[in-house]
Amino acid sequence: MHINDLPTPAVVIDIAALRKNIATMADVHPGKRLRPHIKAHKCSGLAAEQEGAGHSSFTCATPREVLGMIHAGVGNDFLLANEVLDPRRLEALASAQDQALITLAIDSEETLDAAERAGIQNIMIDVNVGLPRCGCDPSIAGRLADSARVRGMTVRGVMGYEGHLMMVNDREEKKKNVRDAMSILALAHEDVGGDIVSAGGTGTYDMFAGTTVNEVQAGSYTLMDTQYAQLGIPFVQAMWVVGTVISSNNKWSVVDVGLKSLGMDHGNPSIDQHSVWFCSDEHITFSANEGTPRPQVGDRAFVAPSHIDPTMALHEEAYVANSFGEIIAVWPIDLRGW
Amino acid sequence: MHINDLPTPAVVIDIAALRKNIATMADVHPGKRLRPHIKAHKCSGLAAEQEGAGHSSFTCATPREVLGMIHAGVGNDFLLANEVLDPRRLEALASAQDQALITLAIDSEETLDAAERAGIQNIMIDVNVGLPRCGCDPSIAGRLADSARVRGMTVRGVMGYEGHLMMVNDREEKKKNVRDAMSILALAHEDVGGDIVSAGGTGTYDMFAGTTVNEVQAGSYTLMDTQYAQLGIPFVQAMWVVGTVISSNNKWSVVDVGLKSLGMDHGNPSIDQHSVWFCSDEHITFSANEGTPRPQVGDRAFVAPSHIDPTMALHEEAYVANSFGEIIAVWPIDLRGW
Repeated sequence: MHINDLPTPAVVIDIAALRKNIATMADVHPGKRLRPHIKAHKCSGLAAEQEGAGHSSFTCATPREVLGMIHAGVGNDFLLANEVLDPRRLEALASAQDQALITLAIDSEETLDAAERAGIQNIMIDVNVGLPRCGCDPSIAGRLADSARVRGMTVRGVMGYEGHLMMVNDREEKKKNVRDAMSILALAHEDVGGDIVSAGGTGTYDMFAGTTVNEVQAGSYTLMDTQYAQLGIPFVQAMWVVGTVISSNNKWSVVDVGLKSLGMDHGNPSIDQHSVWFCSDEHITFSANEGTPRPQVGDRAFVAPSHIDPTMALHEEAYVANSFGEIIAVWPIDLRGW
Repeated sequence: MHINDLPTPAVVIDIAALRKNIATMADVHPGKRLRPHIKAHKCSGLAAEQEGAGHSSFTCATPREVLGMIHAGVGNDFLLANEVLDPRRLEALASAQDQALITLAIDSEETLDAAERAGIQNIMIDVNVGLPRCGCDPSIAGRLADSARVRGMTVRGVMGYEGHLMMVNDREEKKKNVRDAMSILALAHEDVGGDIVSAGGTGTYDMFAGTTVNEVQAGSYTLMDTQYAQLGIPFVQAMWVVGTVISSNNKWSVVDVGLKSLGMDHGNPSIDQHSVWFCSDEHITFSANEGTPRPQVGDRAFVAPSHIDPTMALHEEAYVANSFGEIIAVWPIDLRGW
């Protein structure tokens, strides 16, 4: 099958670009120095490529991502970098502890209670390093770790996500801010103990020199999106939502990719050499830039999303293409949901 | 099961509010005067409620919506109000023509060709009435209808979606604009023939007096969202994404509802009596308004999405609740995908 034969809208991954991105990151953070974040792609087939490049520990955002990875047999060390209270999901995670090393983030006595009740063995203290989201106040991190140890749990270390710094444009300013955030995490780590200091993302992946961070949680570097592309990092676009032009006139054209196949929180997607007018549920209205031929009904359009993570979560499978546009694999996006 | 026991994030539908909305609309547009749009909810269980209120003809945006409705045994007359070129999907639709009346929108010779090749019998001419999206120029509508009849197809009429007018706030201005758009459609209908003149949505549902429109394609009125709520129409919010507060401090709280459980193209969702700060993949950071108690870890939060259609498309099922918060049914959101 060729890209031109796919039913649309279809997620298409350029295997060469994906492997280049994975290799570039693995050079900087080999093996367990990288804990790839599954939430970016929710696809165990893609995670298997990351495993093939030497990574065996993964970051997850939902219980289903952890359990799906174990079910797929990819990876052996999973950090659920999110707080979970649901007893059924926690029990399902606890039941899988004999199949993989599972570590759960906690940031309060309540989340610790829930983890203990379900029989979770390994926890990580999630520390707030400046992003107003989850993560405990650094001053109580040690107390939570002590409380976990009293309960007989293993405290593997600390994590702190500096998500508020991902899109800072000035590299020097960003480096300084990341160092400041990571010094908060290092202080908390002194109180907490354990081997792991986990942080980072695609936007800050190369800014941990001189910090105590010993694993980086990047995920979007694999496929990229138009927002991360603005940062000038050495990762290339490796995923598009391919659509079919279903209507066209001398002013505008319409492709069958829309709000239900695109994450829209970072704004409109892009189509190379074309201008996107607006998106509807199942459509993008767009037009060719000057010098570009007008799209014809039946043409394919390659839509680059502005945010990769929620885009992947909308699709059932990803089609993996070689440089001739031939489909060489179909990867289920099997880690969706919660 | 009670709302408080649901795994989160979870779509919860208030059955009383839903039925009130359905009854209010059925009073204005009874039976076949309404052709409810399935894309708003993608849920055959909800469509069965619409059928119970007297509607047997439905509008769909994707082949899978049509085939899923037939599979579920809800409705008997489906308009696929979108252009389709994919031969496999068109053939699947053609194969289902012995089970239901299926009508396909076309707006070009190319889409007509594709329909004919697959063996589609009934078509509708999709006419542009001002929204820059699909729909032929009104001047060629008659020619397309003639071309369809030469091919032995049945032309059931015209449709024209005035989507650009949905959010006009001034009712008198909107009425005038809808009338103008529908006079374009009426002229095209004179050239095309057929019994059906189909148009409209929740934002314009009561503005067709004095036009030739004989069926209205509204869908969002069933569940509503915060954007449509701004219009002051007599439909109430009937759906929330219910989440669990997983982290909380004296400045902000975090609920486990995020970009992967919310359509975001119309902006942030709302939480009554609270302020939404921002959304992440799996989180909303928010805070209580003055006079509202601070959310505690483990509390439930009721998140009202800004756009219903893409929100529903992110979930596997909807939990239907009575006024005591008891879950009385679980409806699969079975019409997702393409």
